[in-house]
Amino acid sequence: MARVLVTGATGFIGAHAVEHLVAAGHDIHCITRGGGDIPNVNWHRADLLGDELVLAGLVSGIRAESLLHLAWLVEPGKFWNDAENLAWVVASLSLYRAFATAGGRRMVIAGTCAEYDWSSEHASKPLDELSSVVAPTTLYGQAKKSTFDLLSAAARLDGLSLASGRIFSPYGPREKSGRVVSDVVTNLLRGRTVETTEGTQLRDFIHVSDVAAAFVALLDHDTTGAVNIATGIDLPLSRVLQEIAAQIGNADLLRVGARAMAVNDPPRLAASVSRLREEVGFVPKYDLSSGLANTIEWFRQQLAS
Amino acid sequence: MARVLVTGATGFIGAHAVEHLVAAGHDIHCITRGGGDIPNVNWHRADLLGDELVLAGLVSGIRAESLLHLAWLVEPGKFWNDAENLAWVVASLSLYRAFATAGGRRMVIAGTCAEYDWSSEHASKPLDELSSVVAPTTLYGQAKKSTFDLLSAAARLDGLSLASGRIFSPYGPREKSGRVVSDVVTNLLRGRTVETTEGTQLRDFIHVSDVAAAFVALLDHDTTGAVNIATGIDLPLSRVLQEIAAQIGNADLLRVGARAMAVNDPPRLAASVSRLREEVGFVPKYDLSSGLANTIEWFRQQLAS
Repeated sequence: MARVLVTGATGFIGAHAVEHLVAAGHDIHCITRGGGDIPNVNWHRADLLGDELVLAGLVSGIRAESLLHLAWLVEPGKFWNDAENLAWVVASLSLYRAFATAGGRRMVIAGTCAEYDWSSEHASKPLDELSSVVAPTTLYGQAKKSTFDLLSAAARLDGLSLASGRIFSPYGPREKSGRVVSDVVTNLLRGRTVETTEGTQLRDFIHVSDVAAAFVALLDHDTTGAVNIATGIDLPLSRVLQEIAAQIGNADLLRVGARAMAVNDPPRLAASVSRLREEVGFVPKYDLSSGLANTIEWFRQQLAS
Repeated sequence: MARVLVTGATGFIGAHAVEHLVAAGHDIHCITRGGGDIPNVNWHRADLLGDELVLAGLVSGIRAESLLHLAWLVEPGKFWNDAENLAWVVASLSLYRAFATAGGRRMVIAGTCAEYDWSSEHASKPLDELSSVVAPTTLYGQAKKSTFDLLSAAARLDGLSLASGRIFSPYGPREKSGRVVSDVVTNLLRGRTVETTEGTQLRDFIHVSDVAAAFVALLDHDTTGAVNIATGIDLPLSRVLQEIAAQIGNADLLRVGARAMAVNDPPRLAASVSRLREEVGFVPKYDLSSGLANTIEWFRQQLAS
């Protein structure tokens, strides 16, 4: 049983990660602004964007061996280019320093596929951690990349083990509204018409429980550097939408092609998953069909309650 | 006359930059920890590593149009891999945010040739801002690069103009001890034996007054992105050492080859200066001979006083 510190523990991925950590029997400490309600977890209230010294004191007292840092600005639509991304770089550097000073040994941070060059020239093949061009076009992608660059350089000097999980397209229970899967599922469950783009863009959709389990596997492993968190299977978005409509049983409400594609939407975001599969040894539990079934069931219960 | 805010104004390059800015008739405001003594300059005491809100209030009150950000950890030997580099990233992000919020329009930061990949494979040709591989091997180089990456992304969104001057090998009056030119000059002036490496490493030495003038030219220009600050002429270090000894007149005290080369010292660090020459329109005033003469004279007066 290792002592694990988690940030973002009440978020989309974090809540699932804490469930996996509890199941694995870890001694779990979470820092959140508002506390949390999962039992068998130590909840510490603090604002990662707040006073650095308060945070350092808290982290020093917890004295965790490993740190899963998932907290970040996540508001849909807003997060891509909001100036607050810089504040999260600062918070991540402060958190790292506090953790390293307190004797921490292993840190895993949440990266993103938005760190890669998304232009079609570079993203036509599956994106690979070691050979693909890393050149973000958003402030979010740049902030995640710079955080990874800086912490990697610092961790090498400090003898601390650091990895970043680059998340592709997560979906599943607890996804916020304003995201494609959560919006399509809830609207179809309510019997409302849904207008989407042609959906030709290829994406690697991965169930959030698998994303969280992959982070926990990465935390317990000694792999360093960037590791894609994805299934390795990219599908047209339209295929995902049709599967949702077929499972809910009202495909007639789905108007694929009614909306124009966003100009900057990359045609393909596919992931090489050899590091995750072969080095970390992680295999996702859900395929698209079972993952969407689980997701639809969760949203159905939410709407009923 | 533009209102200019300067950080690091009492440092090696900063002190020379303030002289050039005074000569150009700018309205100059400097933030330093301990104040300063150059007349016709507004000195504001504050610690850039201190309270972010205090700094923001100060910057907001000054309301400068342009910002020359030179302050950083510079202690010879220590700065390459000290954890304080992360604190300077944080300070630079805070400074940027305060300046942008206060209506700032143009910001120039001090970059470094240590942002480039120094391995001989990549540094055998002159390093070029647009095509050379940027891959720092030190925490200092990474911190400078990440600061540039983050501020460039933020500045694009804010409509603020940002450039970074990548400094090669500066030397000249006010250089700290512990650096090759200052140590060799002061030791030879004192009649002491000086032991150096073979000096085969090729470097682009540029007089600090020219470095400072290049920064002022860059600040007054609208070029964005990275700009090498160098002469475009790389010479073996031994050539520079021999010129110093010849000018002082005691070449017999120089023991070139008495010390082993440092393992990680790159064999060549040469700069392409086409951006500085052609876009910014800057040409250095000093050549090696006149630059060293000026430097030796300054250290001679220091030793005499």
